[in-house]
Amino acid sequence: MTAQPTPVTVLGLGPMGQALAGAFLAAGHPTTVWNRSPGKAEAVVARGARLADSAAAAIAASPLVIVCVIDYAAVRAIIEPAVDALRGRTLVNLTSDEPEQVRDLAAWASGFDYLDGSIMTPTITIGEPSARVLYSGPEDTFDRHRDALASIGGTATYLGADPGRAAAYDMALLDVFWTSMSGLVHAFALARAEGVKARDLAPHAQDVMSLLPVFTGQLAGEVDDGEHPGEQSSLRSAAAGMAHILRASRRHGLDTSVLAAALDIARSAIPDHGDEGFSRLAEVIAR
Amino acid sequence: MTAQPTPVTVLGLGPMGQALAGAFLAAGHPTTVWNRSPGKAEAVVARGARLADSAAAAIAASPLVIVCVIDYAAVRAIIEPAVDALRGRTLVNLTSDEPEQVRDLAAWASGFDYLDGSIMTPTITIGEPSARVLYSGPEDTFDRHRDALASIGGTATYLGADPGRAAAYDMALLDVFWTSMSGLVHAFALARAEGVKARDLAPHAQDVMSLLPVFTGQLAGEVDDGEHPGEQSSLRSAAAGMAHILRASRRHGLDTSVLAAALDIARSAIPDHGDEGFSRLAEVIAR
Ligand SMILES: NC(=O)c1ccc[n+]([C@@H]2O[C@H](COP(=O)([O-])OP(=O)(O)OC[C@H]3O[C@@H](n4cnc5c(N)ncnc54)[C@H](OP(=O)(O)O)[C@@H]3O)[C@@H](O)[C@H]2O)c1
Ligand SMILES: NC(=O)c1ccc[n+]([C@@H]2O[C@H](COP(=O)([O-])OP(=O)(O)OC[C@H]3O[C@@H](n4cnc5c(N)ncnc54)[C@H](OP(=O)(O)O)[C@@H]3O)[C@@H](O)[C@H]2O)c1
Repeated sequence: MTAQPTPVTVLGLGPMGQALAGAFLAAGHPTTVWNRSPGKAEAVVARGARLADSAAAAIAASPLVIVCVIDYAAVRAIIEPAVDALRGRTLVNLTSDEPEQVRDLAAWASGFDYLDGSIMTPTITIGEPSARVLYSGPEDTFDRHRDALASIGGTATYLGADPGRAAAYDMALLDVFWTSMSGLVHAFALARAEGVKARDLAPHAQDVMSLLPVFTGQLAGEVDDGEHPGEQSSLRSAAAGMAHILRASRRHGLDTSVLAAALDIARSAIPDHGDEGFSRLAEVIAR
Repeated sequence: MTAQPTPVTVLGLGPMGQALAGAFLAAGHPTTVWNRSPGKAEAVVARGARLADSAAAAIAASPLVIVCVIDYAAVRAIIEPAVDALRGRTLVNLTSDEPEQVRDLAAWASGFDYLDGSIMTPTITIGEPSARVLYSGPEDTFDRHRDALASIGGTATYLGADPGRAAAYDMALLDVFWTSMSGLVHAFALARAEGVKARDLAPHAQDVMSLLPVFTGQLAGEVDDGEHPGEQSSLRSAAAGMAHILRASRRHGLDTSVLAAALDIARSAIPDHGDEGFSRLAEVIAR
């Protein structure tokens, strides 16, 4: 006996909203969509979604409402005027923003169930086994909608009742993601200045990146334990390496603001901690 | 018929110099070592290395001389006074520094063969299949020492006759590596401020990092082709995400200099390129 798939509404049809609506449709959910500005629903309507002509009408169409827009200010701009329509329904907010915003919104939410989520993988993963979503908020709300949310694909991780918990993870994870991406585009710019094509650098960059998960495991233990051994690679040696990259980048007239900031942090730690490891910087950043 | 392993000299016994000497010893090379300050040779001497009492004496002991110290200024401080001893030998410089330094040193080198190399993996990989070393300089020098250098383990990649080529790759690869590592320690600091342990964040951070090689392949093509599609994820959306991380970090009093610099670059591109993808920033960084 299979239950009829729950009707789902998706508010926001940016790339991620469209991917979500597509995944619900693919899993057989009657899917209603709405977007602030018109013209973004075409692809999902062609696949069977119903386009509502207001956020309130879209909300009224389904017991489970997903919102996925650029930030929480946009969420509020959509939800606040339509709050009456939400009564008795569940709002799952898959918009990314800082924990403070999430906790404020969760505290404001009343008359409906509120679950917060953060999508950690790109649009192409949505509906696929590689999707990853973190959730936090009332556990019974998560449990009640677990099956419907499974249509998003991949792994759903429930992080606890504090609604801001998923966003706290999201911020830290996007921190390493966007900082790494900034390093990547800078590396491509530096390589090009040295006459090296991005495509020629890429396989080597992929090798280097494959080391990061190993360092992550190692540094996590060091950070939690407050121990920062530098026997195999010291902060002093790391700072020397960063200084070389900075000089090479300056020689080519590249923007060096990101690297210079990272090097300043490392250098500030050298007088007291030069023989220790890089994980020491987690403490330096926090003081 | 197996040739007798070539005698090898290792100058510099920091963590990497010790790992290199250990790998040559393990592969059966008669190994001579020297380090500026005493007391670092104990472990490799216990494994069979001979400790020379000057750089010149160490160089005189082997046809193949490896130098691996903190930077090229240190290489010059060691090599210049001992240049007579190098006559007729090969110097393989596995010290990391910018291409300009490498080309200067290669131009200065005469009376001996000079090959430049960059080690792209940590000390624990040395002598193991996971080691990766990039080389550039005269191809016949590389070929002649290929077998001995194989003792370092893993993959040796020859990048061409321009001696600075390996260093150009090295700089770009360290750029993404150290920028990512800076993002990682910042993420741990932010997570901790939100009450999330580094060990709890780590598996999720490892998931996020596993996306980086995929983005690297995609962005490399975009950078080379000068096309920056933003349909699946726009610069505007990325900047919104970075702004959230920045605000969350400021709220907790963390240093935000790296992120703020990265966000400034992204924001500067929004008026003209907000709907394009992140790879556009490789051009913004270079102008
Ligand atoms: N794309 C990805 O790969 C990815 C991956 C993981 C997580 N995410 C997260 O998913 C969320 C959505 O991202 P996205 O990529 O779909 O695109 P986005 O550019 O972050 O958001 C676009 C959506 O936000 C709406 N919006 C913006 N300002 C608004 C306002 N003031 N009022 C109402 N709606 C407003 C847009 O409506 P209009 O069309 O009317 O402008 C559009 O629906 C973000 O939080 C993002 O961080 C995205
Ligand atoms: N450790 C790693 O995981 C790793 C990975 C890849 C590449 N590398 C590269 O390998 C090279 C060596 O790194 P490392 O980790 O072994 O340690 P390091 O701290 O970068 O270098 C230490 C070595 O440099 C010597 N040195 C410093 N200043 C000197 C000077 N003025 N004159 C002579 N010698 C001087 C030190 O001698 P004293 O003992 O007398 O100070 C010691 O032998 C670096 O270029 C590094 O980027 C290291």
